[in-house]
Amino acid sequence: MQQSDLHTVTISEVGPRDGLQSVSGVMPTADKFKWIDALYAAGLREIEVASFVPAKLLPQMADAAAVVKHAVGLPGLTVMALVPNLRGAQAALEAGVHKITIPVSASQAHSLANVRKTREQMVEEVRGIVRWRNESAPKVPVEVGMSTAFGCTIQGEVAEDDVIALAAQLVQSGVDEVGLSDTTGMANPAQVRRLFTRLRAEIGERAGAAHMHNTRGLGLANCLAAWDVGVRTFDSSLGGLGGCPYAPGASGNVVTEDLVFMFEAMGLRTGIDIEKLIAARAPLMAGLPGEPVYGMTPEAGLPRGFRGHLS
Amino acid sequence: MQQSDLHTVTISEVGPRDGLQSVSGVMPTADKFKWIDALYAAGLREIEVASFVPAKLLPQMADAAAVVKHAVGLPGLTVMALVPNLRGAQAALEAGVHKITIPVSASQAHSLANVRKTREQMVEEVRGIVRWRNESAPKVPVEVGMSTAFGCTIQGEVAEDDVIALAAQLVQSGVDEVGLSDTTGMANPAQVRRLFTRLRAEIGERAGAAHMHNTRGLGLANCLAAWDVGVRTFDSSLGGLGGCPYAPGASGNVVTEDLVFMFEAMGLRTGIDIEKLIAARAPLMAGLPGEPVYGMTPEAGLPRGFRGHLS
Repeated sequence: MQQSDLHTVTISEVGPRDGLQSVSGVMPTADKFKWIDALYAAGLREIEVASFVPAKLLPQMADAAAVVKHAVGLPGLTVMALVPNLRGAQAALEAGVHKITIPVSASQAHSLANVRKTREQMVEEVRGIVRWRNESAPKVPVEVGMSTAFGCTIQGEVAEDDVIALAAQLVQSGVDEVGLSDTTGMANPAQVRRLFTRLRAEIGERAGAAHMHNTRGLGLANCLAAWDVGVRTFDSSLGGLGGCPYAPGASGNVVTEDLVFMFEAMGLRTGIDIEKLIAARAPLMAGLPGEPVYGMTPEAGLPRGFRGHLS
Repeated sequence: MQQSDLHTVTISEVGPRDGLQSVSGVMPTADKFKWIDALYAAGLREIEVASFVPAKLLPQMADAAAVVKHAVGLPGLTVMALVPNLRGAQAALEAGVHKITIPVSASQAHSLANVRKTREQMVEEVRGIVRWRNESAPKVPVEVGMSTAFGCTIQGEVAEDDVIALAAQLVQSGVDEVGLSDTTGMANPAQVRRLFTRLRAEIGERAGAAHMHNTRGLGLANCLAAWDVGVRTFDSSLGGLGGCPYAPGASGNVVTEDLVFMFEAMGLRTGIDIEKLIAARAPLMAGLPGEPVYGMTPEAGLPRGFRGHLS
């Protein structure tokens, strides 16, 4: 295969944020460092390491600033943090993150349950964050991960027109990237293709990552569908850790190990060494004893004769 | 949607054969009847109900003739049986099956392990079966499910040219349909698209079903990939029961419930009522106490507001 034929995929690991904030246990800071180091050693170059929220709401994230400060020491790593509001964004930028991501719900009902704000109030919050970023850290991209873009466990169906209109409004507000999240595991491949195609038509290169859940087993099929229509960045979580505690019945981020196996087996380059990725489960499990981890590829092992690009 | 725009998918349920012959327990004949009736009630119209092999090798299939005789009483159901040799085919045709399926391995090593014959000996066996069929039951189609078409746990990689050449040889031998099986869970979506595209180019409308496994979590993604290149019949197993005992490390048929959910959610018609399909797990579990069943959709439940074509 010639160099020019190579397709690359970016895997954005969300376990240290999305995973850890969804479990009841609290991973000690030193264990987070070891886990993030292991993810980095496996080749991950974009990691969402923390959420800047009040420690009394999410004690799992009380050490967010310390975790960011550690992660920015890893050369070439894009260190992301989730911020739900301006105060969080200020703290994240002060800690030195390279990119911030803001959750904005397509569903009004989910927005109120998740961040106690309407969609419109969240857009206003995003504007404030963008203004602050423009003044204090103009090189730090602001991404929105649009929650419940494919359906909502509270309100049911979410109109596709609403998703696209909200994305356009966010870009007009100065957001650099808008990705779509299947917070509730309701997406199907046909819908994924339709929505990401419309998203790209509406906001062009500002169309961002696919964040899929495996709630009904369709996680990888939905990632494949997104790849087919041009998505090149995928969120996933080592061991499938996490989900959304505010979307009743929802569970299960796409498993990083299985996602990387799929793309590497297809001949695409993730930059990740699967064997080292599987080894990165050890510090996760050591830092969070008793927490179940998932993944079919680690359980079955790599196929005989399988060679990823880095193995 | 106009009638002419509707796409339909055939789900070929293999649980009563592939599933039951892979577990250690033996489901009593009366329970098999109840389970098959429940699958039929859910809308399944193609079921592989038995394997015609010596009872001393597979005691789970000792009642194959009785099960076929029951199943052919269900109007509109295509009753399939697996046969590894001429003797099995004779017994299956005598029992009254509507379609027979023969496993032929693309991998020489797997062929020897699975049926103690070389690939070439199996092609010869297939010719004998076709001759017998032509004389005794000319309307009964003969299908080959090509095992290890996407890789083999024993020999490793299987050359795509070998798969296509074998398919052509089988069609020349009088086989009506050749499907491709990912016996070992090694397939990836790019390979699935390539191989089924080549298969159709080589043998046209005689290209048959996709039989995918979920060993590394890619089962549904591979089915989606097969759908994309024109495959319209998919094997799967209720509760994910089964696998291949002769392919070490392989496990896990695609789960019928998740597969039907994916296609129905995409707006395709399977003819299956998912709620009744999930209800068909009860007689399976009653007839095989303690045997684990899988499936994400039954566990998560259908999404709020979800409507399949028949619900």
